[in-house]
Amino acid sequence: MVLIGFMGAGKTAVGRRLAERLGRPFVDADQVVEESAGMSIRDIFAREGEAGFRRREAEAVRRLAARRGQVIATGGGAVMERENLRALRATGTLVWLRAPIGELLARARASGGRPLLERSDFEVRALYARREPVYALADLVVDTQGSSPEQVAIDIEQRLAAGGAREAAAVDVELSAAPYRIHVGHGLLGAAGQLAREAGVTGRCLLVTNPTVGRLYAGAVLESLVTAGFEAGRIDIPDGEEHKTVQTAEYVWRAAVSHRLDRRSFFCALGGGVVGDVAGFAAATYMRGVSIVQVPTTLLAQVDASVGGKTGVNLPEGKNLVGAFHQPKLVIADVAALRTLSARELSAGMAEVVKYGAIADPHLLDFLEDRMDQLLAGRPAALVRVVARSCEVKARVVVEDERETGGRREVLNFGHTVGHGLEALGGYRTWLHGEAVAIGMVTAALVSERLGRISRAETERIVALLRRAGLPTVPPAVAPEQLLQVMARDKKVLGGRQRFVLLRGLGCAEVEEVDGRWILEALAEQRAL
Amino acid sequence: MVLIGFMGAGKTAVGRRLAERLGRPFVDADQVVEESAGMSIRDIFAREGEAGFRRREAEAVRRLAARRGQVIATGGGAVMERENLRALRATGTLVWLRAPIGELLARARASGGRPLLERSDFEVRALYARREPVYALADLVVDTQGSSPEQVAIDIEQRLAAGGAREAAAVDVELSAAPYRIHVGHGLLGAAGQLAREAGVTGRCLLVTNPTVGRLYAGAVLESLVTAGFEAGRIDIPDGEEHKTVQTAEYVWRAAVSHRLDRRSFFCALGGGVVGDVAGFAAATYMRGVSIVQVPTTLLAQVDASVGGKTGVNLPEGKNLVGAFHQPKLVIADVAALRTLSARELSAGMAEVVKYGAIADPHLLDFLEDRMDQLLAGRPAALVRVVARSCEVKARVVVEDERETGGRREVLNFGHTVGHGLEALGGYRTWLHGEAVAIGMVTAALVSERLGRISRAETERIVALLRRAGLPTVPPAVAPEQLLQVMARDKKVLGGRQRFVLLRGLGCAEVEEVDGRWILEALAEQRAL
Repeated sequence: MVLIGFMGAGKTAVGRRLAERLGRPFVDADQVVEESAGMSIRDIFAREGEAGFRRREAEAVRRLAARRGQVIATGGGAVMERENLRALRATGTLVWLRAPIGELLARARASGGRPLLERSDFEVRALYARREPVYALADLVVDTQGSSPEQVAIDIEQRLAAGGAREAAAVDVELSAAPYRIHVGHGLLGAAGQLAREAGVTGRCLLVTNPTVGRLYAGAVLESLVTAGFEAGRIDIPDGEEHKTVQTAEYVWRAAVSHRLDRRSFFCALGGGVVGDVAGFAAATYMRGVSIVQVPTTLLAQVDASVGGKTGVNLPEGKNLVGAFHQPKLVIADVAALRTLSARELSAGMAEVVKYGAIADPHLLDFLEDRMDQLLAGRPAALVRVVARSCEVKARVVVEDERETGGRREVLNFGHTVGHGLEALGGYRTWLHGEAVAIGMVTAALVSERLGRISRAETERIVALLRRAGLPTVPPAVAPEQLLQVMARDKKVLGGRQRFVLLRGLGCAEVEEVDGRWILEALAEQRAL
Repeated sequence: MVLIGFMGAGKTAVGRRLAERLGRPFVDADQVVEESAGMSIRDIFAREGEAGFRRREAEAVRRLAARRGQVIATGGGAVMERENLRALRATGTLVWLRAPIGELLARARASGGRPLLERSDFEVRALYARREPVYALADLVVDTQGSSPEQVAIDIEQRLAAGGAREAAAVDVELSAAPYRIHVGHGLLGAAGQLAREAGVTGRCLLVTNPTVGRLYAGAVLESLVTAGFEAGRIDIPDGEEHKTVQTAEYVWRAAVSHRLDRRSFFCALGGGVVGDVAGFAAATYMRGVSIVQVPTTLLAQVDASVGGKTGVNLPEGKNLVGAFHQPKLVIADVAALRTLSARELSAGMAEVVKYGAIADPHLLDFLEDRMDQLLAGRPAALVRVVARSCEVKARVVVEDERETGGRREVLNFGHTVGHGLEALGGYRTWLHGEAVAIGMVTAALVSERLGRISRAETERIVALLRRAGLPTVPPAVAPEQLLQVMARDKKVLGGRQRFVLLRGLGCAEVEEVDGRWILEALAEQRAL
């Protein structure tokens, strides 16, 4: 058990009480540093600078993390060092004691004696802003505002006992015209009706699902909707990408008429990407647009389709050629639904999670490296964290470029240019979308490396992470020229130009026009990986 | 020839020169009033008030209008009296000398001596705002700013010689996210490419039309597009409401792929409502939305589909059940295309024009009463005026309620509740849309009358105008209960409630929940009209 958080979070006070409750020893990393140095932290800062302190802290963390069964309180900055974070995650559950920065500052000032307090308010807030994304990837996030250390300790004890199944997060997608909330949690399906009420949808509901998902979860969702006072009907559409057609959309529209949905009614999509895309498109265009509640049940749908409002169907000529931007009124991402997902599909969804880390969030990459085993084992707390974080990353990009007109949103296509090409060549049967994207991300990383934007080590990190996620990284034996040709027909190729998403370091992406030659060379190298 | 306009417009100065050029006598209505009264207008106002002046003015107008072949300059307020306006329109062509109100005030102050100048600036501007909608329904609108009276006279002479074929108007639809312009004129098809360039569309163009319209006009439009530098292809979709289907939309989507349209390309819809709705829906959803230029070639499409962005297709269960709001980048309404329209279709379009007058613009009703013969004869100037004015009315309503969420837009359904019911009962074959709406407007007028909102005389005016337009006003022998039942299934019936658009006087509409009994009674009375 490792308590993390900013100064003033109460790590020591909560840690002592928690250790007592659990009957475990309590250690304070800062105290360990002071004892082994034979001087106070203030003195270490004065004599050896922050660098000296960090060296001593890393040594203390290394030693503490080697022993199990303790409650550890860390210094506020300890988790910012990659090695510390890795060691702490390896030793146990990270718990973030969260409070608003204003309250943290007030608490810290009241107790005094910390080097950080000598800096300006602005500097301290900037520091907090840098640390928060790391704290937020703790295994448990505990709000401490208004609670005593004892109460916080009890809360943590109870949530540990629940095995992470009570972890939940909300991501607000702040779109100008249609803001909405994504609820991420474990066991949320039974709250669907209540959440829908709170989100303000009205009238009749048509639940669109497929036979496989419907058999498992439609009952709970329908019951919840009816309990919340909605009239709700259900239709099943056939499973599989080959049914993501205009004909299936027409089936949904006509079902909506026969279920007497009017303009104030809503659809509820329960299923993976195909259900979400088809039902989303049907909702976007039924009576020129009615509301939809998205309840994605695959990891891919939870981290991808939840944000962005892209809906659509395929034509024989290509994927997603027909569609609309249509924001849901609410998204319910229940990670409990992921336990019925095959290992292959879970891995495929993980490809998109890796993508978010690669293009925009190095801390997410760290988390994936440290927690991949938990994720693949379906541990709720880790899944909640990863789904919420992925949605946050995507929401940030999408809000900047709502209708894909500004170009910013193109970075989300990292790995997708080659990925779509592979899918198309395989007739959308050989590869799952995430698998094709995994291969495409490696190609894109290799192209980025060739153009001097990332190092070999960074490429290798991506490859290793994808492999640990159970994803393919080596392209099949297709003629690369054929692949390039298919890519040129992809709709992301604007006005005949070949655009490509490159990395500039891990956690930063940019879109450029790239000569096909670089892609061919990268593919050749990748075949031998 | 009658010159109208606000004080300072130059009616007398321009009138003298125009009369000279045409070799016609010139008369100034104000001068006639002064001569017959034996005193100045200032003295008439002082002794008899404005009412006395208006009586004398009406007498002068009546006498002047009885003689043909003169150039008449009227007082600024003369056209505000319905009888004056009718008499002036009967005697010849009304020409509005237009200038910005600021310039008019400056000119009037420079010459002085007018009673109006004694009022405050604010009052004078308010007066102008009341008169402008009447001036704007002149047969010719001539801009005088920066021109000498002689130049204005030459301009008028030339435009008279063109028989109104050079009249044009632009209506700006000021939608927050996607403002666009409607060009209304005679012979605009050949300028389509240039106008499209100016509107900022890019890339390849797919012209969607039907065989009938395409044979007549596609050549001119395509040539114009290609001349302006666009690559343009053409596809024909079958004519007729029965082809406004999901299948036809799919045909258009697939054609767009085979014509290699990408996200920056655009559609151009050339035809009536079916072409506009299907191509509009295809554009709204092709690659999640590409641009469209609408070139409506029926009166109905020019005055209805030009504004509002409604696109869609029918399902077997009902009309327009699938669709999207998608604003065009540009609308080109060429009244020259109306000359190939059948008389029946022209009349059907006129029903929507009457609707705009009835719900929002009494001056438009006056114009229709005075100019219906010219309209049905296809006179360009009158058609330009009516199309532009209808678009203005609709744009005003639509801008207030862009996505039909606020309720304001519902007034556009005046006559449509019963109208849609009749269409549905006739299997969309018996009646053209406008014919069914004409009957429905009479029903709505009769319901309004029963509820005390309009007078019998006002109902009769609507009926007479529709009949002059060649439209049916008496419902067929259907069981009224059956009609009510069909209406209840119409999508405009929200959440089970029966809403109905009523008139409150001519030129003002409101939406209310109406007991079906009133509608049944009105239909019974209407059968005996």
